[in-house]
Formats: sequence, C-alpha cells, structure tokens
Amino acid sequence: MKNIKYVGFDADDTLWINEPFFRDTEKDFLNIFPELDSKILFDELNDTEIRNISIYGYGIKSFVLSMLETASKLSKNLDNDKVNSIINLGKIMLNKPVDLLPGVIEVLEYLSGKYKLFLLTKGDLVDQERKLRKSGLEKYFHYIEIMSEKKTESYLNLFDKTDINPAEFLMIGNSLKSDVVPVIRAGGYGVHIPFHTTWVHEEIDEKDIPERNYYKISNLLDIVTLV
Amino acid sequence: MKNIKYVGFDADDTLWINEPFFRDTEKDFLNIFPELDSKILFDELNDTEIRNISIYGYGIKSFVLSMLETASKLSKNLDNDKVNSIINLGKIMLNKPVDLLPGVIEVLEYLSGKYKLFLLTKGDLVDQERKLRKSGLEKYFHYIEIMSEKKTESYLNLFDKTDINPAEFLMIGNSLKSDVVPVIRAGGYGVHIPFHTTWVHEEIDEKDIPERNYYKISNLLDIVTLV
Repeated sequence: MKNIKYVGFDADDTLWINEPFFRDTEKDFLNIFPELDSKILFDELNDTEIRNISIYGYGIKSFVLSMLETASKLSKNLDNDKVNSIINLGKIMLNKPVDLLPGVIEVLEYLSGKYKLFLLTKGDLVDQERKLRKSGLEKYFHYIEIMSEKKTESYLNLFDKTDINPAEFLMIGNSLKSDVVPVIRAGGYGVHIPFHTTWVHEEIDEKDIPERNYYKISNLLDIVTLV
Repeated sequence: MKNIKYVGFDADDTLWINEPFFRDTEKDFLNIFPELDSKILFDELNDTEIRNISIYGYGIKSFVLSMLETASKLSKNLDNDKVNSIINLGKIMLNKPVDLLPGVIEVLEYLSGKYKLFLLTKGDLVDQERKLRKSGLEKYFHYIEIMSEKKTESYLNLFDKTDINPAEFLMIGNSLKSDVVPVIRAGGYGVHIPFHTTWVHEEIDEKDIPERNYYKISNLLDIVTLV
C-alpha cells in the first residue's frame, strides 16, 4: 500500500479499553435493583440508550441519563440512595485510568515517523479529551477530532476540510460499523481489529462489508506489515 | 482594522438565545420541590454545576445530571415522578427551537464575503451540532469547532493548527471570560457584545480586561463598521 499517506485510528477499544467498563457498570446497575428481572431491566436500558442517541449522543453522561430513565420507568421505589448510586456509577467511570491495549505505543511510534496520524473518536468531548490526556498519546497525532457520528458523510466531510485524497487514507478500528465500512464507502481503506467486547449497537452484518479495500488483523502490530 | 482576515463568533447568546432557557429550567426545577427553600436549592445546584464542570463539561446533559445530584442531596423524598420530571426538563431543552438574535443573518451575510468566518462554541458536541443545523447558519462558516474550554491556551492551539496569525484574528462574543479576554491574551482582537443574561460562572472582573485590542458593542450590526 505505497499510496497511503494518512493513517486514522479509532480510540475506544482500539487504543485503550472502554467497552468492558460499560458492561461492568451495567452489572452494577442491575445489582441496585435485585427485586427486578435483570433481563427485562437490561433490555429496557439498551432500548432507552438507542432511543436517546439522537438527542444525547454517545458517552458516559448519556449512559447515566439512560440508566436513570430506565430506573424511573421500571423500579417501583426509586429513592435518593438509588439515584445517587447511579450518578456515582457514572463518576467512577469518568475517573477510570486509561489502559492502553498491547502494541499501541510501538505501532504509533513506528507509524508516526512515516505517516500523518489521525485520531478519530466518537463520544463525549470532555471525556474523550480526559482519556487522551491520561493516555499520553496526544503527541503522536497530527490531527485529532472527536466526532458526534462516524458515518460515510462524516469521513467525506473530514477529507474535504483537511484536503485529503481518500485513496491515501487508511483507518483502523474495532468497529466495522463506525471505523471500517464508512471509510471504505468514502473512498479510503479500512482495517478491522476486533476487540473481544462490542456493543450490540456497533455490530454489523458481514454481508455489508465492501469487498474492496477491506482488511482484518488480530494483532495491532500487524498493521506495520500491512502498510 | 485592515489587518483582520478572520472573524470568530461565539454561538450561545451571541448568535442565538441560550442562557434564558437554563434560567427558565432552573425555575421549573425549583417548582418540583415546593417544600424546599428555593434559595438553598438554587445555591446547591450552582455549586454542584461548578464542581462537576471538570468531569462533566458544559451543556444540557451536565446540567440535568447536576439537577439530579442536587435533588438527591436536598430532597427528603425523591421518587420516580420527580426523577422523570427532571430528565424531561433536559429533553425539553434539547428540543427547543433555535431563535437567532437580531442582525445575525445580515452580519454573517456581509462579513462572509470579506473574511473567513469561524464559529467557536463551548458545550456539548451533539447539542451544539443540533443547534447549528437548526439555525441554518452552517454555510457562512469556513471553520467550526465545538471546544471543551475557551481559555488562552485553547485559542493558541487553534491559531497553531489552522496556521493563523493571531494579529489577523478578531473574536466576537457575549462572554468576556471565554470569548474576549483569552483571545486578546493569545494575541488577537476581542469584541464584547453583552447579552442580558449571563451565567454567574462566565462573569469576570472589569479590571481583568486587557487595555489593548478590546472593543465593546451593543448592537451586532456595529461590527460591520468596526472591522
């Protein structure tokens, strides 16, 4: 791939651990309501989250608001303590350390000498900036953007405003739906590096993956050989 | 000011109405708890908001979470209905129409032909994008950024990454603290256009305003004569 000049990275579950914190917090949330059927509570939470994405967007604050909405709908006796417990689950998430995934430093160190690196992440502005600061990875990136969505149109906008030829852009991430398929549709290359936990909302049907310009790796270090 | 090439605009309460919605919602929040002393409740809400800025940032979701935290601290009998009412206050805010302030279209129409216009706004990513879309003002701006903070360093970063000479940049906004003083400190020009309602956290001591490169106007149309 000698035409590649720009390499874009997703952050959550590509550079550092994220989704397992949500899964753990869901369990803590269910434990606040031992009297409720956990399957019903879990499904309602997921439906509430999806329904609220258009007004709340992604991230921890949205997740906490959806937990509170779910609790107020299904619990018979929501009280101060339970509300406080849910708010605190969010604050604990917002204060988590940032755990880098294996190979991240080596790969960024190597690629940043040869390509312009982009960090393109979805989610909450303040929280993503916090994680980036804690990660110490800021220095490797030429361009950082926290986006509200990662659709084909979002990547086309990015290429347009940064004057990038899509055929020179390769994006790496754990979400086929957000990091891989839309980049290929926008004219670039997409590399999928699966993570063991994926939010059901980020899953995609295998048949929706374009045939051209799609790669899959299971170890981040393999990106070095690929480009 | 013939050296000016770039004109930056704040959005909330500079281009469209924002702060009064927060003030109205605070009243609605106090009304949910008629048994509580409204002064104590109001002060606690404000303290909670300020305390939470570092982890939550600005915007409606942060405000709703701070209302819920305040309620869980001061109310003796928080229940499902009250939690729901607070969550709904946020959803109502997130669905408000965008009311442009007087002169906005004329000024942007005129200036966009002569300068590169920047929109620099603080707050929540998804919510600011929603307002921008609803406002119909996107087309006037060369560059749009939703920032987590607007400090001197934030403007220096912006000038750096966009290759702008600060002496060619003029910023207009209703907050001395976020839109005017830090821009002047970063080497640009600052124009203050006061709005009738300012959040106490955005207020600043008059003596902290730099003497040079500071202007104040009371009608947005006057910016045309100024530049």
